[in-house]
Amino acid sequence: MEIENGGTRATATVEGPLDARQLDRIHAWWRAANYLSVGQIYLMDNPLLREPLRPEHVKPRLLGHWGTTPGLNFVYAHLNRCIVERDLNMMYVMGPGHGGPGPVAAAWLEGTYSEVYGDVSQDEAGMKRLFTQFSFPGGIPSHVAPETPGSIHEGGELGYSLSHAYGAAFDNPDLIVAAVVGDGEAETGPLATSWHSTKFVDPRRDGAVLPILHLNGYKIASPTVLARIEPEELDQLLRGYGYTPHVVEGSDPARMHQEFAATLDRCLDEIAEIQRRARRGGTPERPRWPMIVLRSPKGWTGPETVDGLKVEGSFRSHQVPFANARGDDSHRAVLEEWMRSYRPEELFDATGAPVPEIRDLHPAGGRRMSANPHSNGGLLLRDLRMPDFRDYAVPVEQPGAGTAESTRVLGSFLRDVMRDNMADFRVFSPDENNSNRLDAVLEVSGRTWGARIQPDDVDLAVDGRVMEILSEHTCQGWLEGYLLTGRHGVFSCYEAFIHIVDSMVNQHAKWLKTTNGIPWRRPIASLNYLLTSHVWRQDHNGFSHQDPGFIDHVVNKKSDVIRVYLPPDANTLLSTVDHCLRSRQYVNVVVAGKQVQPQYLDMPDAIVHCTKGIGIWDWASTDAGGEPDVVLGCAGDVPTMETLAAVDILRGFFPDLRMRVVNVVDLMRLQDDREHPHGLSDREFDALFTTDKPIIFNYHGYPWLIHRLTYRRANHHNLHVRGYVEEGTTTTPFDMCVRNRIDRFDIAIDVIDRVPRLRPIAGHYRERLKNTLIEHRQYVRTYGEDMPEVAEWKWEPA
Amino acid sequence: MEIENGGTRATATVEGPLDARQLDRIHAWWRAANYLSVGQIYLMDNPLLREPLRPEHVKPRLLGHWGTTPGLNFVYAHLNRCIVERDLNMMYVMGPGHGGPGPVAAAWLEGTYSEVYGDVSQDEAGMKRLFTQFSFPGGIPSHVAPETPGSIHEGGELGYSLSHAYGAAFDNPDLIVAAVVGDGEAETGPLATSWHSTKFVDPRRDGAVLPILHLNGYKIASPTVLARIEPEELDQLLRGYGYTPHVVEGSDPARMHQEFAATLDRCLDEIAEIQRRARRGGTPERPRWPMIVLRSPKGWTGPETVDGLKVEGSFRSHQVPFANARGDDSHRAVLEEWMRSYRPEELFDATGAPVPEIRDLHPAGGRRMSANPHSNGGLLLRDLRMPDFRDYAVPVEQPGAGTAESTRVLGSFLRDVMRDNMADFRVFSPDENNSNRLDAVLEVSGRTWGARIQPDDVDLAVDGRVMEILSEHTCQGWLEGYLLTGRHGVFSCYEAFIHIVDSMVNQHAKWLKTTNGIPWRRPIASLNYLLTSHVWRQDHNGFSHQDPGFIDHVVNKKSDVIRVYLPPDANTLLSTVDHCLRSRQYVNVVVAGKQVQPQYLDMPDAIVHCTKGIGIWDWASTDAGGEPDVVLGCAGDVPTMETLAAVDILRGFFPDLRMRVVNVVDLMRLQDDREHPHGLSDREFDALFTTDKPIIFNYHGYPWLIHRLTYRRANHHNLHVRGYVEEGTTTTPFDMCVRNRIDRFDIAIDVIDRVPRLRPIAGHYRERLKNTLIEHRQYVRTYGEDMPEVAEWKWEPA
Repeated sequence: MEIENGGTRATATVEGPLDARQLDRIHAWWRAANYLSVGQIYLMDNPLLREPLRPEHVKPRLLGHWGTTPGLNFVYAHLNRCIVERDLNMMYVMGPGHGGPGPVAAAWLEGTYSEVYGDVSQDEAGMKRLFTQFSFPGGIPSHVAPETPGSIHEGGELGYSLSHAYGAAFDNPDLIVAAVVGDGEAETGPLATSWHSTKFVDPRRDGAVLPILHLNGYKIASPTVLARIEPEELDQLLRGYGYTPHVVEGSDPARMHQEFAATLDRCLDEIAEIQRRARRGGTPERPRWPMIVLRSPKGWTGPETVDGLKVEGSFRSHQVPFANARGDDSHRAVLEEWMRSYRPEELFDATGAPVPEIRDLHPAGGRRMSANPHSNGGLLLRDLRMPDFRDYAVPVEQPGAGTAESTRVLGSFLRDVMRDNMADFRVFSPDENNSNRLDAVLEVSGRTWGARIQPDDVDLAVDGRVMEILSEHTCQGWLEGYLLTGRHGVFSCYEAFIHIVDSMVNQHAKWLKTTNGIPWRRPIASLNYLLTSHVWRQDHNGFSHQDPGFIDHVVNKKSDVIRVYLPPDANTLLSTVDHCLRSRQYVNVVVAGKQVQPQYLDMPDAIVHCTKGIGIWDWASTDAGGEPDVVLGCAGDVPTMETLAAVDILRGFFPDLRMRVVNVVDLMRLQDDREHPHGLSDREFDALFTTDKPIIFNYHGYPWLIHRLTYRRANHHNLHVRGYVEEGTTTTPFDMCVRNRIDRFDIAIDVIDRVPRLRPIAGHYRERLKNTLIEHRQYVRTYGEDMPEVAEWKWEPA
Repeated sequence: MEIENGGTRATATVEGPLDARQLDRIHAWWRAANYLSVGQIYLMDNPLLREPLRPEHVKPRLLGHWGTTPGLNFVYAHLNRCIVERDLNMMYVMGPGHGGPGPVAAAWLEGTYSEVYGDVSQDEAGMKRLFTQFSFPGGIPSHVAPETPGSIHEGGELGYSLSHAYGAAFDNPDLIVAAVVGDGEAETGPLATSWHSTKFVDPRRDGAVLPILHLNGYKIASPTVLARIEPEELDQLLRGYGYTPHVVEGSDPARMHQEFAATLDRCLDEIAEIQRRARRGGTPERPRWPMIVLRSPKGWTGPETVDGLKVEGSFRSHQVPFANARGDDSHRAVLEEWMRSYRPEELFDATGAPVPEIRDLHPAGGRRMSANPHSNGGLLLRDLRMPDFRDYAVPVEQPGAGTAESTRVLGSFLRDVMRDNMADFRVFSPDENNSNRLDAVLEVSGRTWGARIQPDDVDLAVDGRVMEILSEHTCQGWLEGYLLTGRHGVFSCYEAFIHIVDSMVNQHAKWLKTTNGIPWRRPIASLNYLLTSHVWRQDHNGFSHQDPGFIDHVVNKKSDVIRVYLPPDANTLLSTVDHCLRSRQYVNVVVAGKQVQPQYLDMPDAIVHCTKGIGIWDWASTDAGGEPDVVLGCAGDVPTMETLAAVDILRGFFPDLRMRVVNVVDLMRLQDDREHPHGLSDREFDALFTTDKPIIFNYHGYPWLIHRLTYRRANHHNLHVRGYVEEGTTTTPFDMCVRNRIDRFDIAIDVIDRVPRLRPIAGHYRERLKNTLIEHRQYVRTYGEDMPEVAEWKWEPA
């Protein structure tokens, strides 16, 4: 068998599972994908090289990544053979997602691209558009992106391919997710720990992930660690992660085709055997899943050297191997020779369409990896069967009379959501599920655990649906993969540590924003965060656990994908989470405490309040529905409680003071309706906050966010915001409030200082409140707990 | 030898390196540390149990983590023996930093605690204070914290112990950093990849890290992955990471003491031998560094069961093993029995001081791990030898005449900083050093690389000082460890991906804030970020690489530790970085582009401008120093260029329009001087921005930050900010500006719309500018590059 390797001829006869016709066709498919990849990076005209390349055929700005692409194409070609032969349901996750030209080329060869983008047809005109649009203004990004059919994995920030792949495989027993892990990506922390996902896969219920560690040896400018440790070290590392590695190494295509095909067959046989054994019954031993190590040159089949410097097999192939193909005749000649070495005339017919041998290699319909419905999860998404959240309501006879742990109440609701959706709902947490008081979910499903179980373990199960690993990155990556393939979930986390996934939520929010503009991408379930153990109750853990800034971070993203909720009690939390679980295409951030706290609204009132998202609490106000002297805004459970306690103090001091309490559940209601779809109009805002009265706003997070959301409002100059100002330590709950001056006494002082008609008598009362604060400080430093009158305070109707 | 294990008596005669006296003393030291740890968690009085425990001796709120603490104490005791026997220079990094009582107990036993906190003396009164202050209002945090002598490692967010330890070991050839890695922490991504730091240690020049993987088996509520994979898998994993693991497993103290002592001796011998071999000369083979796997029960020596549930050896030991020792007599009896099982009467003398046998175990002075000067790096910090940054100036004949790549210019300066400080300066980057155009540093030092080097590799060296691994977490962790032990460095990173370390910079900024209030902690060098490849020049990588929100993230931290600089050209960048490298105790964020761009200020002007941090650019203004019609503010290189180009257009349209250009280098100057030490007074602000004229502010990042910084200013209602509004894709550089409306034409339209006297003639000019924008869009979509008149625009003096 004779095989042409890019520009270099290589002759070899290699034994292997592929017969001559198969080998020939796989190689042709690979050449076609590579040809189309190079074309996308370089050309804007003359796509079939019907004439010699001229400067104007080459794009003026060359932007793309060649280095990883031929490897991605190689794997794609081989997976296609297996899909057809075994009728596999297979997805492809490309860790080195900067190799964007590869999957685009594959989708075009498989016909999917022309199906979803009619103008990029399977002919010469379509090929010209395919080339021109790549990394071109008005076209498509250079990375794998939402625009790429068949992908659930954004190719921007590296590190999440394996966690995405496992997320896709969960609860999809017949799915195999082939996941290429780049050796650059493999150096990231998130990727390094995500290998351990093997301990969270149930071979009976979940699909399989086939990791393919692609060692092409170089990052942008350096070698990679895993390519340069000793081969036996790498083998140990991967076995230590729980895999059985199979190595394929080389550059000669004929030999590599046979070896890779044989290795793929072996891995797929192993996967099938593992699943068969496990599914025969009984609790299986944790399998050592197969994986592949593919060592191939970076920029494989590209030019060996350019300008005397090594390119193929070097970091110089990482992006565009040579830059001046438009202006420099010799570079352009290298490009033309390179592209012609794929022999396009054998790959495409006279119209520019792939020849039948290439068209026939790939599977049909939804078996094509570029069209697998799991990669467009909204197609498969079913509504959750939702228990009625009203059934979990905390009885509230009158506002403030009783107490509850809001997240514990929510836990019962989530338990029944899980009970009714045991195929497509999971909860994720970095070892905080119980700490966050969601233990009830463990009544219907264990913690997923495929590693060794000991007799005195509690709540562990191979087929658990409570996903806990002490890696926020892995939780987030799993959940993203699960959502993107059409399922539902909730991520519960300590508020401060959710910053660990800041950059991941960035990327997911950007994915959602982009897919909103892509008609063929169907809406997926929202990414729901429950942030509890929040800043105001990290009094016991201290300063390092205190940071409410995740809200600020997400609010920087596009308003059409971001929602932030601060339910003040259990019933509003239930109503909020019910809403979030039904929603699509959002990142919902729900912040709610887990500690025992007063309850204010019965369920009918909670539903009304959550539906409006913001509202006057008449029962707490003293303005009798008329014009107030002052507006007390509040958002967040602890600030709400402190605001109410301030009202309680002030109505004792000044029985005729007209106070209006406005509580905010949906933070985005504060914004202008021109800025956010949930925003209030100026008229609505003014009706709540007046245009000329002082507003004392007590907020859960950093105070400036409230200013940012309201700076265009008429009464903004009267707005005085309290919030977290980075004052914290290990102390009592109430002292945390005092240190940041969101406590009832400071709020009361703020009111006294800002209501003009109180000024003549303010001095005396301000003095009293200041003295109480001094008393407080002495008390907590002596006794280590809050003064009883503070700790046991309850709202009483006037 | 007879040994008492907490409450349980265990008799065993075990062979080992410790003779009876050594064994006895180590065990006594361990009992003392454990006793003091339990006392800190539970007691506020009766510290020596001179009377039976009464309710009022127990703290009302019990907050702390027992589970990991006895293991930390065990290791500490044994390290002390080795330090004394071998005269080691050793530091201790505690990954499970929630075990805060342990190192505090150790520091008290060693006398360090009383040296730095005089009132916590080594007697009964001091012990009472030691107990009471722990996790108590006005006291100390429950985690390892800046308040803890001997620590460089905050015990809040997990995952960074190994990268901190390696950062400390770099360039400290005689230092050994013992680093306990918790098995919870070991599940995090950052920790999982930081094991690979072995490939970045030069055994000739750097110190050694001795990792001790502490498998106590449980996180908060679940087992840990590494404790439950098969032992041979764990062995493979650790060998795969490049180590030679030594396992010590058990719970019987006598046996564990002997085995751990023997293992420590072996590891320290191996380290000594590796260093000896390497330092004899020649390029050494990469060593397989020794490490220890310590399997011991969680909550070791604590109560076996409480209320019928297993506690020792279970997740129930994680925090406070039983909660009601104050209110419940039986719980209090368990506590008393537990504490008495350590036999305090043998450990402390009549005054409450440690008995001599205990006092003599530990080393003296700076050899004590609680007093090692490396753990208070400011003590060792030397000023950098700084070349004169003026020598690297780009000549600027007149503003805008020439061009330069600002970061490439900076690269030459950093090269010489490195050349002159080859013992205590490094640069860190996630494989982006050259992409960020700092290649010049490679002229004086290679990229650190201890793995295999191949003949065609470029710039790699075992003793390199350019630290590149594709893990932002590892870069950040190394740099933090390096700075905290008294050295200097710079972290260069793509702007969008620095969000990966959001939570780490949180923790470091909190560390700095806290240390500012601790007199014995000496100031350390600032953490310097150079964020390049910024949002405005991710036109080629596209949406996934675009996010300027790191600035917003850091600005949430305390103003006394945060600085943000946006130098508009090369000379201002040089002046800024010179300033940052000389500074102490800050997180400095410098954002500067790497692309070719106009240069505005010669070096004398740049120095003046950077010193003021904000200023009117007279040469660009048309108000002749008088009252302007409009103020054009700008911050960031690309917004500055677009603002100048807008001025250029507008002066052509309206020769008598009085425009004032104000450029901001130091973002914090915008803030109120009551909010930030760099802030302008209202008078100064008004002098620049007027109190009544429209301000069009063109900003690098999300526009609302400018509102947040200025919302209290008199003229805020006239402030109109342009910035990044999450509109991005792969496109041309100028089109990125247009999509977010920070481009010259939109800025010019903003001015026209807001200057009242232009209104009568505005329509015509607005139309012209809108047409130019349409023309632009058509041009880039056709040709894939920017219109020449835009791309080649240069500022010309009027």
